[in-house]
Amino acid sequence: MYIAKINIMTKPEILDPQGKAVELGLKNLGISQAQEVRIGKHISLQIDAQNEQDAKEMVENACKNLLANLIMETYQYTLTKL
Amino acid sequence: MYIAKINIMTKPEILDPQGKAVELGLKNLGISQAQEVRIGKHISLQIDAQNEQDAKEMVENACKNLLANLIMETYQYTLTKL
Repeated sequence: MYIAKINIMTKPEILDPQGKAVELGLKNLGISQAQEVRIGKHISLQIDAQNEQDAKEMVENACKNLLANLIMETYQYTLTKL
Repeated sequence: MYIAKINIMTKPEILDPQGKAVELGLKNLGISQAQEVRIGKHISLQIDAQNEQDAKEMVENACKNLLANLIMETYQYTLTKL
């Protein structure tokens, strides 16, 4: 059993209005030292696989075919054995 | 300058319909070994702080007062010096 933690972010060249809104919100809170705020998705899931290679293939498959839009987004993940 | 990477997830006891939908989507894709899918937010930001302690305080402040709803969500973060 593996735990996959996947981060999906919009590519840097794509505008992130949610991030801009949070940046403004932080400034209003008095935290004006924050910049380049970007917001994406964090997905955690458990995978029942025999070995790390199998788990990796499943996560790659899931990211490419369901979780991420590869035109606009990039993904990164870590796998941890339970 | 520090980079903060923050993960905000709903607490485990709270139902995550988006995660359930993704789990079903993965099954339809043929990945039936995935379970306990949960979806949260991943926020990355740059902080202009003198030292790690200052950066940490800012991130804690931002999480507690703007980014996370502590009744339903938990947050975790890492700080990396640029």
